[in-house]
Amino acid sequence: MKALLFDVFGTVVDWRTSVAREVGSLCGSDVDSYAFADRWRSLYQPAMEQVRSGARPFTRLDRLHHESLSTVLSEFDIQLGDADMASLNLAWHRLDPWPDSVLGLTRLRTEFIIAPLSNGNISLLLDMAKNAGLPWDAILGAEPVRAYKPMPDAYLRTADILGLEPSECMMVAAHNSDLAAAADCGFATAFVARPLEHGPAQTTDLAAESDWTYSVDSIESLATQLGC
Amino acid sequence: MKALLFDVFGTVVDWRTSVAREVGSLCGSDVDSYAFADRWRSLYQPAMEQVRSGARPFTRLDRLHHESLSTVLSEFDIQLGDADMASLNLAWHRLDPWPDSVLGLTRLRTEFIIAPLSNGNISLLLDMAKNAGLPWDAILGAEPVRAYKPMPDAYLRTADILGLEPSECMMVAAHNSDLAAAADCGFATAFVARPLEHGPAQTTDLAAESDWTYSVDSIESLATQLGC
Repeated sequence: MKALLFDVFGTVVDWRTSVAREVGSLCGSDVDSYAFADRWRSLYQPAMEQVRSGARPFTRLDRLHHESLSTVLSEFDIQLGDADMASLNLAWHRLDPWPDSVLGLTRLRTEFIIAPLSNGNISLLLDMAKNAGLPWDAILGAEPVRAYKPMPDAYLRTADILGLEPSECMMVAAHNSDLAAAADCGFATAFVARPLEHGPAQTTDLAAESDWTYSVDSIESLATQLGC
Repeated sequence: MKALLFDVFGTVVDWRTSVAREVGSLCGSDVDSYAFADRWRSLYQPAMEQVRSGARPFTRLDRLHHESLSTVLSEFDIQLGDADMASLNLAWHRLDPWPDSVLGLTRLRTEFIIAPLSNGNISLLLDMAKNAGLPWDAILGAEPVRAYKPMPDAYLRTADILGLEPSECMMVAAHNSDLAAAADCGFATAFVARPLEHGPAQTTDLAAESDWTYSVDSIESLATQLGC
């Protein structure tokens, strides 16, 4: 194993709390900011599916997020000016890490190449890393390979960029579906349980649903299991 | 100014001494290892020119280096097995930084996004960063944008990836030609004098040849000039 590739939204950072905070701050306390964050996030997969299906060319996540934001603002009957909309869209660049993420990544980095393999675009992931102190060796993911997970190209082209065989790469994610797609490409897999990603009523991805290579409850635990 | 983009070979790392050392170690003391390194490097621009001209599709520098290495080994009448050739080709992944590079970059990173904008491929630059301790925020350059400097796309697409205007980016390089191409794209420019890049008999790029935004003799000096 030479490289650990990380899902980011939900696995490394707590998108729901962070986005809800910025929604509340900009839109006021009358808005159900968690419902807003959940609805915005719910448009994430359908937006990428347009790209995966070939219906539209590769489009950065920042732009997909902005289009989805227009929809959600309209549904919530909220008016925002262009500058406020642009600022709120950048909430995804400022997501807070889970408490174990920075220390876990810092330990893993001593022995492995560590990089995001996220559907976020490069500037989103780079701004997030600088804000949160995530010590990535490189910013990889959908944009350099122009393919959104779980398309096989997202995993296979990332291994190719690194000059590695898929079996030398491990996907680390809080989502069983991401790990299944990576495993189909020949990656090793590590499940990190994030039972609060979707809030206290979360019903999905509470546990590993397959015999992944590792199954842990934090990135620090993964570092311990890998001897870092 | 938000991002500083760095040329790497010659500007951040001392390719000539590092490559010559590995040539000497692998090929023995009968070989003029500096002449070998110089000849290998002399095939760098012609190899990329095939891509820039459209005569061949975008091809990673690792592969261009490997093809050039075959030529140079033949010219020097040296026989190497495949494994030794592959190992020697990776000398470019293990180049040593100039003495001021790590500290200078570390200071600059506190105030700016810092990334390579090099013709090296991602895994080459990533391995080099891990070996040398170069604290990049992201690994950018020719591979993510599929264009070799000094093509305008190499600079303009890099700014676009960062979500920045060209005027918010500064190219940092020891080569006047690189800075001229970046300036034509609207980048700010910083010349770093590296009078020993080509050894003690160097005759080119000994000084700034235009009115660049900054002109310094080390990356630490640049950090000081930029108030870091």
